[in-house]
Amino acid sequence: MTSVMASDNQLTAIAAQTREAAQSLAGLSSEAKNRAIEAVALALEAAAADITAANEADLETALAENLAKPLYGRLKLDAVKLRGAIAGVRDVAKLPDPVGDVQIHRELDEGLVLKRVACPLGVLGVIFESRPDAVMQISSLAVKSGNGVILKGGKEAVRSCQALVKAIRQGLENAGVDPNAVQLLTTREETRALLGLEGYVDLIIPRGSNAFVRFVQENTRIPVLGHADGICHLYVDQAAEIEKTTQIARDAKVGYPSACNAIETLLVHRAIAAEFLPALAPALPDVELRGDRQARQVLPDIQAATEEDWSTEYSDLILAIRVVDSLAAAVAHINTYGSRHTDAIATEDLAAAEQFMAQVDAAGVYHNCSTRFADGFRYGFGAEVGISTQKMPPRGPVGLEGLVTYKYQLVGNGHVVATYSGENAKAFTHRDLG
Amino acid sequence: MTSVMASDNQLTAIAAQTREAAQSLAGLSSEAKNRAIEAVALALEAAAADITAANEADLETALAENLAKPLYGRLKLDAVKLRGAIAGVRDVAKLPDPVGDVQIHRELDEGLVLKRVACPLGVLGVIFESRPDAVMQISSLAVKSGNGVILKGGKEAVRSCQALVKAIRQGLENAGVDPNAVQLLTTREETRALLGLEGYVDLIIPRGSNAFVRFVQENTRIPVLGHADGICHLYVDQAAEIEKTTQIARDAKVGYPSACNAIETLLVHRAIAAEFLPALAPALPDVELRGDRQARQVLPDIQAATEEDWSTEYSDLILAIRVVDSLAAAVAHINTYGSRHTDAIATEDLAAAEQFMAQVDAAGVYHNCSTRFADGFRYGFGAEVGISTQKMPPRGPVGLEGLVTYKYQLVGNGHVVATYSGENAKAFTHRDLG
Repeated sequence: MTSVMASDNQLTAIAAQTREAAQSLAGLSSEAKNRAIEAVALALEAAAADITAANEADLETALAENLAKPLYGRLKLDAVKLRGAIAGVRDVAKLPDPVGDVQIHRELDEGLVLKRVACPLGVLGVIFESRPDAVMQISSLAVKSGNGVILKGGKEAVRSCQALVKAIRQGLENAGVDPNAVQLLTTREETRALLGLEGYVDLIIPRGSNAFVRFVQENTRIPVLGHADGICHLYVDQAAEIEKTTQIARDAKVGYPSACNAIETLLVHRAIAAEFLPALAPALPDVELRGDRQARQVLPDIQAATEEDWSTEYSDLILAIRVVDSLAAAVAHINTYGSRHTDAIATEDLAAAEQFMAQVDAAGVYHNCSTRFADGFRYGFGAEVGISTQKMPPRGPVGLEGLVTYKYQLVGNGHVVATYSGENAKAFTHRDLG
Repeated sequence: MTSVMASDNQLTAIAAQTREAAQSLAGLSSEAKNRAIEAVALALEAAAADITAANEADLETALAENLAKPLYGRLKLDAVKLRGAIAGVRDVAKLPDPVGDVQIHRELDEGLVLKRVACPLGVLGVIFESRPDAVMQISSLAVKSGNGVILKGGKEAVRSCQALVKAIRQGLENAGVDPNAVQLLTTREETRALLGLEGYVDLIIPRGSNAFVRFVQENTRIPVLGHADGICHLYVDQAAEIEKTTQIARDAKVGYPSACNAIETLLVHRAIAAEFLPALAPALPDVELRGDRQARQVLPDIQAATEEDWSTEYSDLILAIRVVDSLAAAVAHINTYGSRHTDAIATEDLAAAEQFMAQVDAAGVYHNCSTRFADGFRYGFGAEVGISTQKMPPRGPVGLEGLVTYKYQLVGNGHVVATYSGENAKAFTHRDLG
């Protein structure tokens, strides 16, 4: 474990150690990995006093340095929160093993059999701000998926992270697993170096503000699982049911406005605007509404929205409202200003819903429900590693599946391609098995 | 269609047109897409004389400009080759539709149903050197997968590509499909601009030399499907069967030495080197062998291999040979110098084979067969879009599956997340359907 800044060379050495430890982790059975996770949970329980003491020291420093209040709240890890996090570690052991799943099983020819098998990615690089409890969740997900992990916590949480990682490594060791599978970096300079470790680190998972995620995306050639923006929309179609739609809008805006799956813009068909908007406004008493010209004709007291509003993630109790002429205009608006996260239509017209869900280019396209369902736990994945707004899979909320890849295993008995080419070429059988 | 260089603004406009055309393509049924592909085949047949005449003009220029012989061969598109390529277009129509596949179908709660559905990526950017026949294959794969495509062909094939794309667009129009789904760029400057079209182009597929693919990978933030290097290995274990292994080595080296799935390095266990290498050498009469010290003790007449040989893709009749002390040493060599493409073990020892296939970090890990099976057609995918050596899926030979992504569709009836949180939280059912 590194507690002072590692030089680039030291960092490469740490990464190589992690890779080696990950290779032996990759070879473990589901049972052995679950035993290791239980050993980690036990070691965390044994170290609970040390961990909460370390956290108190971090909190004192944070107070002295006037850390922003929400960050301070997330930094806090008392005995109750720790117990909850350790229960979360044990929950990970109960999840199905994502490794070893046979995705393709095909005879290419007699005695020549192809399998596509899920396998770990190798080494994860996880960079997070504040929240020391992320250390426990991520380490257990890494062990479960057979990956090594290099953690980079925030400076403000350094003592907490060190105490947690010390316990986690002790737990791994108790279970006979190479503790180098879990490593901790603690300085800001190391973030930059970690982002440059192509060839050693297979996936970067950033956890923090939008600006932070964007910084990570723009400064690495390693694949990044995450999203910078969450600009989600609710489109109120002309065939929307007013009361139902109002409830959805309320849930999607005020339940947790800083969530990435909260809505920022409400689009409303002009045929229903005069009826819907006056019903909506009283349901959102604490929300600042900003409307385009047509919305303000219906609700004259609200602020004017500008072009900038359409591409702003407020993460706050603010909602932009735009009146559109058609479903097609709503789709065009979303595909122009949206962040491809999650967008919903409220309508009783099935054909309109289907058109919306087909044409909106987003990880999640919803009909008559709140955008806030976009979440790995709510989808039933048992865990959420991140939410991706990229086009390529994994897309949307990503569970353990996002921490594995696959390899093709081909087993023959002296088979050569010359047999299957040229004049007397033998034909492949290409017969799917099992 | 652009025949002169497009400015960045023009290129953005072209990309926006392609995106719009792709959106309507994405909404077509399998039957409609297959009809469009048949219309493309018919239009290509109708334009056959124009296409071969354009190709002859390209060939004349190539001759006058002393184009390298292999490039000249690949540039050639005579009536026979064209007929074959048109048959290939019709084969694409026969493939299963990769769009619409329901990958997850799950009730989250009563009346709240989640589906994960395969959908097109959007717009593909395909950059290739020489080979005008690639235009036909890629355009038909794009239509089949519901994607628009911006093609950038080599300067030497400009007339051929223009004639081909003209016919393809005519075919699309005949079938009532927006011809802007297929676009052609022709100048080198446009390659650079195309690589910068993040937000308009969803996937770049480069087809050309290793250096060219590396250039593409290093100059875009758009995901790239391809591989720069193919440094494949055959490891001859101490329990290898000599004759079988010799046949595999021969097939993997001499069948098509410039293929990315040909072997560059042969690793041999020291316990079998003295027996195996003298059997191998006469089976590879035209191959230049380069050995390490121990290999040259057995075959004193061969050249010495240097450190550089281990990381060189010869793409030629050259084979590097290294004697290793153990299976673990072979795995370590491959994981250090390999390109994560395809690596094989020859052995009659099943446990050794399993260890090799688990520990070698490559898209393909083979036992007792030639590395040259690493190919989308041989795997039974019906098409090959590219071979990826990245860790994240799609990995290895990629068929039509690599041209689609997925989206989550969630349908409710006024469902909000507030119902499932807080004190009286309702539990999700998370019941998989159908």
